[in-house]
Amino acid sequence: MSYPSASTPAAPDARPLAAGIIGASGYAGAELVRLLADHPLLRPAVLQARSEGFDAIDAKAASACDVVFLALPHGESQKIGTELLELGTQVVDLGSDFRVGGWTYGMPELHRESIRVARAVANPGCYATAAILGLAPLAAAGLIDGPVHLDGKSGVTGAGRSPSEKTHLPELYNGITPYSVTGHRHLAEIEQELSSVAGSALAATFVPHLLPTSRGLLVTAHVRLVQPLDQADVDDLYRARYDGEPFVHLGGLPAPQRLAGTNVCWINAWVDERTGSVLVESALDNLVKGAAGQAIQNANIMLGLEESAGLTVRGLWP
Amino acid sequence: MSYPSASTPAAPDARPLAAGIIGASGYAGAELVRLLADHPLLRPAVLQARSEGFDAIDAKAASACDVVFLALPHGESQKIGTELLELGTQVVDLGSDFRVGGWTYGMPELHRESIRVARAVANPGCYATAAILGLAPLAAAGLIDGPVHLDGKSGVTGAGRSPSEKTHLPELYNGITPYSVTGHRHLAEIEQELSSVAGSALAATFVPHLLPTSRGLLVTAHVRLVQPLDQADVDDLYRARYDGEPFVHLGGLPAPQRLAGTNVCWINAWVDERTGSVLVESALDNLVKGAAGQAIQNANIMLGLEESAGLTVRGLWP
Amino acid sequence: MSYPSASTPAAPDARPLAAGIIGASGYAGAELVRLLADHPLLRPAVLQARSEGFDAIDAKAASACDVVFLALPHGESQKIGTELLELGTQVVDLGSDFRVGGWTYGMPELHRESIRVARAVANPGCYATAAILGLAPLAAAGLIDGPVHLDGKSGVTGAGRSPSEKTHLPELYNGITPYSVTGHRHLAEIEQELSSVAGSALAATFVPHLLPTSRGLLVTAHVRLVQPLDQADVDDLYRARYDGEPFVHLGGLPAPQRLAGTNVCWINAWVDERTGSVLVESALDNLVKGAAGQAIQNANIMLGLEESAGLTVRGLWP
Amino acid sequence: MSYPSASTPAAPDARPLAAGIIGASGYAGAELVRLLADHPLLRPAVLQARSEGFDAIDAKAASACDVVFLALPHGESQKIGTELLELGTQVVDLGSDFRVGGWTYGMPELHRESIRVARAVANPGCYATAAILGLAPLAAAGLIDGPVHLDGKSGVTGAGRSPSEKTHLPELYNGITPYSVTGHRHLAEIEQELSSVAGSALAATFVPHLLPTSRGLLVTAHVRLVQPLDQADVDDLYRARYDGEPFVHLGGLPAPQRLAGTNVCWINAWVDERTGSVLVESALDNLVKGAAGQAIQNANIMLGLEESAGLTVRGLWP
Repeated sequence: MSYPSASTPAAPDARPLAAGIIGASGYAGAELVRLLADHPLLRPAVLQARSEGFDAIDAKAASACDVVFLALPHGESQKIGTELLELGTQVVDLGSDFRVGGWTYGMPELHRESIRVARAVANPGCYATAAILGLAPLAAAGLIDGPVHLDGKSGVTGAGRSPSEKTHLPELYNGITPYSVTGHRHLAEIEQELSSVAGSALAATFVPHLLPTSRGLLVTAHVRLVQPLDQADVDDLYRARYDGEPFVHLGGLPAPQRLAGTNVCWINAWVDERTGSVLVESALDNLVKGAAGQAIQNANIMLGLEESAGLTVRGLWP
Repeated sequence: MSYPSASTPAAPDARPLAAGIIGASGYAGAELVRLLADHPLLRPAVLQARSEGFDAIDAKAASACDVVFLALPHGESQKIGTELLELGTQVVDLGSDFRVGGWTYGMPELHRESIRVARAVANPGCYATAAILGLAPLAAAGLIDGPVHLDGKSGVTGAGRSPSEKTHLPELYNGITPYSVTGHRHLAEIEQELSSVAGSALAATFVPHLLPTSRGLLVTAHVRLVQPLDQADVDDLYRARYDGEPFVHLGGLPAPQRLAGTNVCWINAWVDERTGSVLVESALDNLVKGAAGQAIQNANIMLGLEESAGLTVRGLWP
Repeated sequence: MSYPSASTPAAPDARPLAAGIIGASGYAGAELVRLLADHPLLRPAVLQARSEGFDAIDAKAASACDVVFLALPHGESQKIGTELLELGTQVVDLGSDFRVGGWTYGMPELHRESIRVARAVANPGCYATAAILGLAPLAAAGLIDGPVHLDGKSGVTGAGRSPSEKTHLPELYNGITPYSVTGHRHLAEIEQELSSVAGSALAATFVPHLLPTSRGLLVTAHVRLVQPLDQADVDDLYRARYDGEPFVHLGGLPAPQRLAGTNVCWINAWVDERTGSVLVESALDNLVKGAAGQAIQNANIMLGLEESAGLTVRGLWP
Repeated sequence: MSYPSASTPAAPDARPLAAGIIGASGYAGAELVRLLADHPLLRPAVLQARSEGFDAIDAKAASACDVVFLALPHGESQKIGTELLELGTQVVDLGSDFRVGGWTYGMPELHRESIRVARAVANPGCYATAAILGLAPLAAAGLIDGPVHLDGKSGVTGAGRSPSEKTHLPELYNGITPYSVTGHRHLAEIEQELSSVAGSALAATFVPHLLPTSRGLLVTAHVRLVQPLDQADVDDLYRARYDGEPFVHLGGLPAPQRLAGTNVCWINAWVDERTGSVLVESALDNLVKGAAGQAIQNANIMLGLEESAGLTVRGLWP
């Protein structure tokens, strides 16, 4: 396998690279196919899934690709992921199997240099991406009097393509539905990363909710401060942290419907002087920055390509 | 004017009482008309509004009613409310003008006895009803390490009947939209009531959001505790507080879509032992328990009627 | 079994009658339970279902009821329905098994007298109810140059409670989805009834669509006329046909969202003089007038009760 | 003004051309900006609108562009359109002012060669595009026994960006709402074009409906045939007519949610042998193929560019 080294960005006439997608029939897998269709250098070369007429899953066949994306249900990446690594393939896993204490955590805004040299990257969860990016500037400055209080809202695509009684349209319509109130799967990676950024243990409460919508996610954080801050301080912190980041937008009223199809995480933080708190809104498209888009961003970095290659699409709104 | 005294519940053959509705063309006003249509003893006798063919607003004409409901835009109740009181009429105001430091705060679960003898009742805001009922048991027990962290989600009827660019369907569709992040109108009444229940000042952060739905509201509270509790303690607190309350339901996963058309506030509280917190979900129909239904509940109490008269409808779901 | 005879409307002090519901865990079954909770004389006495903790289906046990409602998936009523009849019980079947050429077709506006003496009534399909009521006045007057052209739109509850890939929220969201374009199950009963009313064979095209909503249904009919008519003629026809009908409303722009929870079919017909056609809109709540409500209306007639007993609820809107 | 002639497709290194957008703040105008951002050769050079901080409308300033798009409310294009033509600018008007009997009707699948030499093109209405493309193969073959019966369903963006009581979210939610039952604005252009294709007058009934969604449109046509056809005949007709068309897709179950963001019109036609009819479904994104996308397709043809330039984006689904 040969691909451009990290220090040599791909030239405009570089040969295309091959991507494998295992789990191509789910929503995240389909989104990978959609995004790679417009990627200048990375081609979906091998598609595998358990259903819908694709070939069965076959690590050997996939291992010829320059990078393989695993978009399998949670818990199903372990065996195939390990096998692909042993076959010498670079892997980005969109599941949760390797995120905590395992592979390189694929959040470029926090771990770009590690990702650049990694062969195995665990793509962050959708809620976790919004939560961690929303709080990293405050955590890094040691300003948080933990735990942080996180409230998540997500469209139904976040729960995958398999229909279930809990996500049946009439059950969700005209309302909002809490679930996993004290123990969502993403909580561990949120605490791992925020603690790492803060340099000491930082806990979180996290209550996720299903919206009666398809795509898009918002995390609201209520954060107590260890010392008073004014709005200008907070604005400076966020600007300094995310200056030059291609996929973080700051300011305004973050709303996920404005980001449909984009790889952007849209963040704003307000000081609430009355209570000595900061309130943070962090929105993204759960299938793009929360899944397939961030996975491609990671693959671009791993393969030495332009980080934003294939990810510059404008949001579809309204 | 004569009506059954507080100590004499209306007999089954009691004569009907007359209700006036000022602001009958808005969503809350229309909901009053809908609910009173099935009320056994209270009849909508006088309807007034500024538009849609009703008579103009006329305090004198309305004052002949046994009770007058004001369902006007915020800020417009002051003059007519005061005028009606001077004319000797009992008034329930659904607006925010008299809620803080003014009239009797019309939350029966907290102030039933005061309401029974009041002539002027300020009906609570929709978010405030969910927030206060959700937290009163913890506040009363002195268990809250404030501020409390409140996250609100509401359907568009909560913003009224007047269309606006911010609530235009394509602007909200397929997402969720924060607003008034650090200064929503209901914050003052929430803090007033929680502090009163707690016996000392209790502050709150409150971030409201618009759902792309019509009716229904959920408030999520993240509450730090002053001492560790287990789930059984919390269950006991809530059961003790709301035992016998006709319109508070406990347990399960509160979801407003299950309450459409009902006067119920559905609450559950989970201990999160890892963080020493309690997480509370509190759902209701913003037009019923959050507006017209609670107003009728208050009027029933003021008029000495059965408190749940006209309010026993089952929710329309799915 | 004894119940009031057809010629003796139940007195106010009549003893309650017992209703059985077989298939109580589906959406139509749950709606029967909801509506009967407010019925003055008919009580849900026996609930049976295959799941969710109810007793298993048992014709013998159900047969003690004054009337049994079958709310089973299509194709599953035949055996139990026949068994109940043999046991001497009156039955209203909400499925499609007996609608064509079988039991009495339970549309009171067309067959009230037959229903009054029937022991076995087939409750019409939801689309069929809207289509037939929408066109009966024109068909009866022999004015239709067939086939009629019917376009149906329904919320997802019309497809039942079982989740499926086709009704998964993300598949339907932000669009409208045609299905069964040339052969929907309701077509046969629509043609049977319209032909019967017209006195000669009348065919129909019918294209149903799934809306990304929960409840409510609209059928649009495009009808060519055998002779020119003006609007006053058509208005007269509809008024004459439905004069005194408690559950047919005429005029305006029929929209199912205004009828949520009601037993009303809302119809309007417009003459399109340019093309010699009439355009008809016919809206209803698919779970009420299109299922459980009409079933109770039929049972009321069969049991000699007030036809509208338990069915006078106002719509929940917005 | 100089631009590539019709007979010389733009070379890859062609200089960019300048587009003006008048009415840039509406939904169609914003969609033009979004699409042109990815156009290889056409740049949004002049943006004008009456509000939101853009410059006021100024024909002189806009006339320096290679092409000007008018995306104004209906009725407001006449003066500025005529003025721009007199100044020598090519114009594509997205309004309805010039569609009937006026400028070249900008439907490339019917009028490609006229568009190629036109200086003034009237972009078709959104419903009209779906209806005409859906029926042109049958009309051209003389197979239609008119009138045709058209049933339209559209998201709220089709009604523009100005909020109104009729499109207020709570009024539309959980339903479907008919409007303009006998006289929608698009009827005239539909009949003009179908008659032209058929070679004789062809009338239509057309009932449009508002969906409680944002984007996307479906037209269902019920068509009586002058002679029996089988499915293979109809399939052949449609394939022959649209062979090689870049933006017409045939087959399956057309559903607008699958086309969000694309310039595709998705059509299928089913023979209904029982009634001697054909049933046609025709779906598109009302803001793209029904507005901004088709306008760019027209401009591409007028300017001698690749017809699909800037229009190859994949749909965003789910």
